[in-house]
Amino acid sequence: MNGKVFLIGAGPGDPGLLTVKALKRLQAADVVLHDDLVGREILSLVNKSAHVRSVGKRCGQKGRTQKEINALLVAFASFGLNVVRLKGGDPSIFGRSGEEMSALHTAGIDFEIIPGITSALASAAAANVSLTRRGTASAVLLVSNHLAKSGPLPWRAYVSTGATLAVYMPGFDYDVIAEQLIDAGMSRDVPCAVISRVSTADQQILRTTLDRLPKAVRLPAPTLLVVGEVVRSEGLSAALPPVGWSQIDEKLSPEILATLESSTEAQPLWGD
Amino acid sequence: MNGKVFLIGAGPGDPGLLTVKALKRLQAADVVLHDDLVGREILSLVNKSAHVRSVGKRCGQKGRTQKEINALLVAFASFGLNVVRLKGGDPSIFGRSGEEMSALHTAGIDFEIIPGITSALASAAAANVSLTRRGTASAVLLVSNHLAKSGPLPWRAYVSTGATLAVYMPGFDYDVIAEQLIDAGMSRDVPCAVISRVSTADQQILRTTLDRLPKAVRLPAPTLLVVGEVVRSEGLSAALPPVGWSQIDEKLSPEILATLESSTEAQPLWGD
Repeated sequence: MNGKVFLIGAGPGDPGLLTVKALKRLQAADVVLHDDLVGREILSLVNKSAHVRSVGKRCGQKGRTQKEINALLVAFASFGLNVVRLKGGDPSIFGRSGEEMSALHTAGIDFEIIPGITSALASAAAANVSLTRRGTASAVLLVSNHLAKSGPLPWRAYVSTGATLAVYMPGFDYDVIAEQLIDAGMSRDVPCAVISRVSTADQQILRTTLDRLPKAVRLPAPTLLVVGEVVRSEGLSAALPPVGWSQIDEKLSPEILATLESSTEAQPLWGD
Repeated sequence: MNGKVFLIGAGPGDPGLLTVKALKRLQAADVVLHDDLVGREILSLVNKSAHVRSVGKRCGQKGRTQKEINALLVAFASFGLNVVRLKGGDPSIFGRSGEEMSALHTAGIDFEIIPGITSALASAAAANVSLTRRGTASAVLLVSNHLAKSGPLPWRAYVSTGATLAVYMPGFDYDVIAEQLIDAGMSRDVPCAVISRVSTADQQILRTTLDRLPKAVRLPAPTLLVVGEVVRSEGLSAALPPVGWSQIDEKLSPEILATLESSTEAQPLWGD
């Protein structure tokens, strides 16, 4: 008799942002195949007798191909095991779940998806931002800058929606993204925030505006970039100047703060 | 000394989709002010000594105004209490958190947002859909049909993004929405799914195509409508005809199934 595969979203990093259901499944798993983005704190919650294996890319080494991962999922499940495929964030948002579901479906393996807190939601919470707001933004667009590698993204169409933009995997391309958004008609003084390693002990939040974004310090991956008027509205002093303001979250380290104050040049602080 | 307000996303309904952090906060709360969408199962997890009050609309009765809710949050917190403001889904997606955050900030009350599983993620999981998929959809747009009451939505801009559309609160407007999407250039045979009362015992999933959506049975609120090619791709038999197919999840009751089979007319089964 076949086992079952659970495609589970681990959320952004904080084990407290796992769902109760995900936690239960981790504790009942025979096998856990996880992305490298899933941290040690969460993996420590897996039951001790389970076989836990990373299937992600690590430090520039090549990870397993999607085909290999699909084959592993099918193989373990066909031995009758309870298999957890653990992904950072939510499985259905830039998580390549579609390919795994198709493979499982084709192989006749039962599967179930357990959603997770995707980075846009966790980052909005951390930055005291509501992604929608009456009269300011009536839609939210989740896009991935990583996909820009395979062709230009339709930034003009994105901007025309009036939606708050949540840009996954912006990398260090702050300048390219800002330029494209301004070219696409977005106002230069639109506020934005980069949230780095959200919900972890290393969390940092950088607030700036679109025209100042290219000169902002680069924060370590994984990051999320939120662009839109909603970033201006919430939890911030009304006394902040409306144009060109820049604010750093208190969690930013003094070293980085010093770097930011002493330099207006783009300055990657970490390797990719 | 002031207390603190926790703006918490309760997720879509299943208590298992609460985050661990949200559950802990519910168990430590002095006061819980909740939307009506938050169900009894979740409210039963609040500690018994807490003061629990609904501040939402119920059965056509007028709920408390946003100003009243803001004032209650400030009042309870200024008594030094631990206050939870519990919302369905995620606080930052169509949750009016922005207004509450501004009020708390102005009053000098400390607050924290705890994200939740928003309906789009839970619905995608329930329907075995990945909202993004390589080569099919590289973005996801979260929009609310409820906002159509205050003016036409920019459907043409939405469609031009090529994003998978997650339409919150479609109500019974299947015909209007389908017509506007087709007018905006979306193909008639684009697959879509309506997910009703996701993650609860009453969950129902209707799969159809854009041109057949106007004649589909209306499912009870709350619902979410997902529109895009990704709905076709996953967990479905490759043998399904590519155009005009319609599939009903096994959880749909035999009565509704019979209704659907015997009629192609739009037929609201429940009151609003």
